[in-house]
Amino acid sequence: MLSLKGATPSRWLRQVESDLPSILIDHAHCEKKAAGTAMNLMFAYVENVELCRAMTEIVNEELEHFHLVLELLERRGIPFRRLKPSSYGRKLNDLVRRQEPVRAVDRLLVAGLIEARSCERFDLLRQHVGDRELADFYDSLFESEARHHACYVKLARDFDTDENVRQRLEELASLEAEIIAEGENLPRMHS
Amino acid sequence: MLSLKGATPSRWLRQVESDLPSILIDHAHCEKKAAGTAMNLMFAYVENVELCRAMTEIVNEELEHFHLVLELLERRGIPFRRLKPSSYGRKLNDLVRRQEPVRAVDRLLVAGLIEARSCERFDLLRQHVGDRELADFYDSLFESEARHHACYVKLARDFDTDENVRQRLEELASLEAEIIAEGENLPRMHS
Repeated sequence: MLSLKGATPSRWLRQVESDLPSILIDHAHCEKKAAGTAMNLMFAYVENVELCRAMTEIVNEELEHFHLVLELLERRGIPFRRLKPSSYGRKLNDLVRRQEPVRAVDRLLVAGLIEARSCERFDLLRQHVGDRELADFYDSLFESEARHHACYVKLARDFDTDENVRQRLEELASLEAEIIAEGENLPRMHS
Repeated sequence: MLSLKGATPSRWLRQVESDLPSILIDHAHCEKKAAGTAMNLMFAYVENVELCRAMTEIVNEELEHFHLVLELLERRGIPFRRLKPSSYGRKLNDLVRRQEPVRAVDRLLVAGLIEARSCERFDLLRQHVGDRELADFYDSLFESEARHHACYVKLARDFDTDENVRQRLEELASLEAEIIAEGENLPRMHS
């Protein structure tokens, strides 16, 4: 259902354990970036009313999550600060084709894959994080990420045939799995 | 209260009368752009929690207004489409100083002045537009624009002294009034 081609390797959970504050701060930034991505997609394809409606809902939800993470940080006395992002988002965006309308397909599918990966990781976190408040929090976010994933994939079909979108999603999911398998040293939501 | 230094000239209402559909389409774009501006400010000053909270509220409200205008267009059979924007926003943004923290002051005050001008124009529209549904619609938007104006000016004081912000607001308001007095031929919300 989530289109992912590879599971998160166990080293990621060790990264989470080694620096949970950085993971939480990065999570806040990821929610904010997800809102920004949805806003940018709305600006780029503003004539598509269905897309505008869906993006508005996603902007609102991601901003709500952003504030939930900020409040969690505050309760735990972890100062929110800027953080060098992982290279995951940049690497995925580099895969986006330049010409419309397939550019739209790729932007939507990349956004959908990021949601899928977040969803898979929230699932891992809710199972492995010993902290009950955090486990419940990740549990509460899990469903919306899955829904956003499905929404992005559905919208991509406005810009190309179902078959082309399916094939491209397979390709991008394979490349995303390679990026995840490669990993990186920074402890981040998508490292 | 709205900080404006010059009233909208009467030629603007003639522009509105000459091409109401363009004014409505441009209004939709303006609401979307206002959401984008608030999102950009949140990205730029993400460590400021009060600003993030306020910008989130503004993003949500502007997107709600964007959809209200889209629905109004749909009810009237006016196709929503891309539109060459007026030069008002660009001219105001050209006034923003480049160095932080005064860059933040200027970005917030410019956003506040745009809200103030929109507010003044919604007031004019609700008085002069013969169409009852439209008059009620502009009336319903009036209050939030005034509130956003006050919010932006208040946030600017996080980045400089009250006195400096007051002086800069006077300067920018004078320049904004000149841009409005000069006007332009396109019928737009801020022409």
